[in-house]
This record gives sequence, structure tokens and C-alpha cells, in this order.
Amino acid sequence: MASGTWEEFFAAHLPPPDFEDNRSLLKEFCERHDQYGNRIALVTSGGTTVPLEHNTVRFVDNFSAGTRGSASAEYFLEHGYAVIFMHRQKSLEPFTRHFSGQKLLDMLDIQERGPNTTITVKPDSVDVLAPILLRYKAAHSAGAILHVSFTTVSEYFWLLRAACECLTNLGPRAVLYLAAAVSDFYIPKDRVPTHKMQSASGAPVIQLQLVPKMLAPLVNLWVPEAYVVSFKLETDENLLVPKARAALDKYKHKMVVANLLQTRHHRVILVTPDETQEILLTREEVHAGVDIEASIVLELVRLHAEHLAPCGAPPAAPHGSLAPLAPHAPPTPRTPR
Amino acid sequence: MASGTWEEFFAAHLPPPDFEDNRSLLKEFCERHDQYGNRIALVTSGGTTVPLEHNTVRFVDNFSAGTRGSASAEYFLEHGYAVIFMHRQKSLEPFTRHFSGQKLLDMLDIQERGPNTTITVKPDSVDVLAPILLRYKAAHSAGAILHVSFTTVSEYFWLLRAACECLTNLGPRAVLYLAAAVSDFYIPKDRVPTHKMQSASGAPVIQLQLVPKMLAPLVNLWVPEAYVVSFKLETDENLLVPKARAALDKYKHKMVVANLLQTRHHRVILVTPDETQEILLTREEVHAGVDIEASIVLELVRLHAEHLAPCGAPPAAPHGSLAPLAPHAPPTPRTPR
Repeated sequence: MASGTWEEFFAAHLPPPDFEDNRSLLKEFCERHDQYGNRIALVTSGGTTVPLEHNTVRFVDNFSAGTRGSASAEYFLEHGYAVIFMHRQKSLEPFTRHFSGQKLLDMLDIQERGPNTTITVKPDSVDVLAPILLRYKAAHSAGAILHVSFTTVSEYFWLLRAACECLTNLGPRAVLYLAAAVSDFYIPKDRVPTHKMQSASGAPVIQLQLVPKMLAPLVNLWVPEAYVVSFKLETDENLLVPKARAALDKYKHKMVVANLLQTRHHRVILVTPDETQEILLTREEVHAGVDIEASIVLELVRLHAEHLAPCGAPPAAPHGSLAPLAPHAPPTPRTPR
Repeated sequence: MASGTWEEFFAAHLPPPDFEDNRSLLKEFCERHDQYGNRIALVTSGGTTVPLEHNTVRFVDNFSAGTRGSASAEYFLEHGYAVIFMHRQKSLEPFTRHFSGQKLLDMLDIQERGPNTTITVKPDSVDVLAPILLRYKAAHSAGAILHVSFTTVSEYFWLLRAACECLTNLGPRAVLYLAAAVSDFYIPKDRVPTHKMQSASGAPVIQLQLVPKMLAPLVNLWVPEAYVVSFKLETDENLLVPKARAALDKYKHKMVVANLLQTRHHRVILVTPDETQEILLTREEVHAGVDIEASIVLELVRLHAEHLAPCGAPPAAPHGSLAPLAPHAPPTPRTPR
């Protein structure tokens, strides 16, 4: 079954209600960082949904907690990038991803002394919390991160295109790190029932349609100069690299991060037009809580600097907060594991 | 299409891997509170998923953040109930539901004085956080709440039946408050593909089957003496009360809480065999952040006390922590809004 074009998709799906607000935020953020010559990473994260009803009770969802995207956003910030964190509502976010709500409440001690109540973080939790809290506060006070959120696949595409419209001015200084798990299938709007499907009428048959591949217009039209990275999540090892390479051949972007559902937290394969590079955490690293995203982003920052070099743009500052106007130090070269 | 029986469902779906651990926790919790003559509310919360693949990348989900269940659990605790909080993984939980991770981090101040780092809650956030933190700590230190979590609809049913097996000893002292949004449909295990469906093979047709209605064996066989409350979420006002009443007639349980997706946070209808009672928050109450669950649980506690009275069991303590062995004060009678 044909999937329809991306133009037809946008024509058939209205923008989400908060779209203009988000577009203004994206515009302001990109213009501000563009002025300073900063690099911006657009990190998409979490899964998109496909509603099965207009008044949505049921939907088809894509598995993704947002681990990859939220961790990667932190490392882009460390490398001096400004970050647009475009995530599924309620999915994991940078910094807060380290603590569930319960874990945070368990860290707190409450002291009631007469009329004065104070709440402090237990001393043995300070060591864990302090470094993350400092990085969180630094990123927010520098205005280095913008959060925008989506739920459905059409909301995602509207936001993605709006972000691209703002990022295109940055030319090659923009990185698109498309880690969100985007639905391949959707239900055309005119076939979605208005009310909740009634179980009394028997089990429904859901006829899905293919979502048009947005990577094609994104790479060719929306941000032709940007460093675009897409992700392939598969469950079958045999399909992994062939499918990643086929995507690169087809869309002509810069990198596919290929990973298997079963091993994605300790193994990825970075597929570029020139090479195929495996990043593998050791058992000790996994046990020590090392994020594989640190290595992915480190290598990507290196390749992005190469991509920028012909343009004479300054490379990003390693592990620094944003230093507007000041020249950036080159990143420390290091071979990823 | 026929749905198959509940026995067939359990025969076809294996218990989840952590099932025995959870069963032990449930058993210990119920035996402990049964010893003290406490009441236990089993609160189910959040939506169940239906996997579309064995290595789950895609699934059908039911809309539910877990707001109703997580808020209600707090009010059951306030009324002296022990609470089994059976929730969808990552959905809202009692106490922590009030704060997103970001909101909590924003409440914190960090002070670095030489080698000593301390983190405190900002004075203007203490007023908001302190009462919730105190209730959280009281519930946890009293062992009054047990969290167990599910993701798929079959995990949910396995846990639900296990909880019922433990609760049946409490007879009428058990309340089942089934607020989870459970899938009506599922894909039979032998039709679920092993690997991720490939978009290159075109858009798939998903043929769903009806889930057997577990309320029938639950009410008749598993916990025949318990006070069982089910929920109806609809999007069509005209179907709301008729469907609630039809469910009561069919399953012979005690109450259906009927609500519309669009207005569920400020309006519910409590449908019992004898009456239909609307609970409606005023605009001012909504604005002031009043939880409609406070009124739902208050009325339910009253009806549960009536249900218990013939058995001579002591009514639950209002707004108290669990007082093992001590006689309980009767709840303050009050007509809900």
C-alpha cells in the first residue's frame, strides 16, 4: 500500500493546539544561539502514538522510555551544544532521568522545629545528587536547553518541521539527533472513529497506513546543511547493518545509529557513509552505570567538527557551558571504545 | 467474535517473570494487615498494553496517566486503609504524583562551603512539600502501602488474580477499586510476530480479539465477599449511566464509577444497585486544586462501612494512620458534594 507524500500528511493533519507557542519558543532559542555562533543539537526522544479514536482512549504506541535521548542531551550540553529536547510527554528527561519521584522523596529529611520546618537532602544522598543538580542548574540558567513535547505522530512531525525551519539558518552548525521512536504506521484521520470503540460490537480490525518517510524532505529540503543522525532499532541482528546502510544510501544523511532492542544499552553500531564502527560497553562499565550515550555523543561531536572544519566554524567547547562570543577550544580527540 | 474464557486466557499466557516475587509480597502484606484486622484497598491504576510483537517495539495502549488511581490511594491511606497500589509501570504514584522530577529539582538549593556541600529545599517550597512528604513517610514507615507494577494486559490479570487470592481471607474488609484502564482487546499469543514488523512489507492489519471479562470470576469466585468497585470511562454521555448499570446487573458487584473522558477530573457518577449519585466539583474547587478522588473515596468508605456493619467488623479510622489492634473510630458521616 502506498504511503502518501509528506505534503499530503501535513495537509491532512492540523497542527497541534499549542503549535504556535512552541514555534515561537523554537524561533527565539535558535536565533539567540545562532547570534552567538553556538552549535545546536536537536534531540528527539521517546515514542510517538497513533490514536485509534478521536477522543483518544486507545492508541498504538512505540516502545521507548526516552533513555537514549535524555542521556544524550546531557552529553551534548557537556560538549558546549545548545539542546532542543523534543520529547514524548512524560518520557525521561535530561537530569531528572536519574531519579524517580520516590527516589527523590526518599532522599529528603524533614525537620520540624517549632514554627520552622526545613527539608534537607540526607548527607549520604548529597554526593549522588549534587553533581547532577549543578549541571541541571547550569544548563537552565544559561538558557542552553529548550524542552518541547509531543504525543502523537502528527504532533511530532509538525514540531520537527518547525524546528528545522528555525535550525536551517545555522547551516552546518545544527545536529539533528533523531532518537525518537516514530510510528511507521498510522490511521488516516477520516477512518478514526469519534467515540470509544465498543467491545460489544466485537473485536475491531485496525487497518494501518504507512507514514511517509520524513527523512527525505528533512535532509533534502528542510536542513540540507545540517549533520543529520537517524536511529534504527531492530530485533533481528541480521537486518541491522544492512537496513542502516540502506537508509544512508537512500536519504544521503550523515549517520545511522543502529541498535538491537535486546542489547541497546551496551552496544550500538555507528554507520556512516565511510565506515561501520561498533561501540560496546564492557560488563564492568555497564555495572558501574556508564552511559553508552557518552561514547556515542563524543564520537558524533568529533565527526561533526570534521563536518564543520571546511566552513571555518569554530569547534564546540568540550565539557564547558556555553561561552557566547568567546572562541571555543577544540574537543579533546579520543577514540571511542 | 467470541472472547474465550478467563481460564483459557490464563492457560494461554504465562505468568510474568517477576510473578512469584510479587505474589510473596502480596501474601506477606495481606497476612500482616489481616492479623491487625485492618481494611485493605486494592487500587489498580494506569493503562495496560497489548504487545504487537514478541520483542515488543509496538503495542496498543490505553489512555491513562494514573491520576485517578494514584490520588485515590492517598485518600484510602488517610482513611486508615492499607493500600495495594497495583499500577502501570511509570504511571503516576501516590505522593510523587504532585511533583514532576523537574519541579522537585527546581525546589532545591545547593550550598557549597569548602568540602561540605548541602542541599536544602527552598523555604517557599517547603510549605507545599512538607505536608505531602510527611504523609509519604508516615505511609511508608507504617508499611501501609505496597507497590506492584504491570505493563501488559496479561501481567495485569496475573497480578490481579494473585492479589485476590490473598485478599479473599479478609472477606468483606477488602475493597477492590479497579481504576486501571484495561484493554478490551488483545492479540492472541500465537498470532504475535516474533520480530519487529517491517514497514517495507506494507501496512499491517491488526486483528484483535476480545479480552475475557475478568470481573465475572473476580466477583463470583475470587473475592466473593469483597466490596468491588469498577470504572467505566466513556466519551459519549448517552452511553454512560446505561452502560454502568448494565455492568452492575451483569456482574453483581457493588459500584461502578462512571465518567466521561472529557470531564473526568471534575465529574463522576457513582452508580450502585440502589442509586445514582453525581459528584461534581465547582469551578472554584477545580481552581483550588481539590481532588475529586477525595469525595469519591469518602463516599466509598461510608458505603463500605455499611457493607461491613452486619458483620460486626470495626469501621475504619478516619484520617488516621493504621492503628493495629486498637479499636477504630467510626468515620465522620458526610454527604459528598
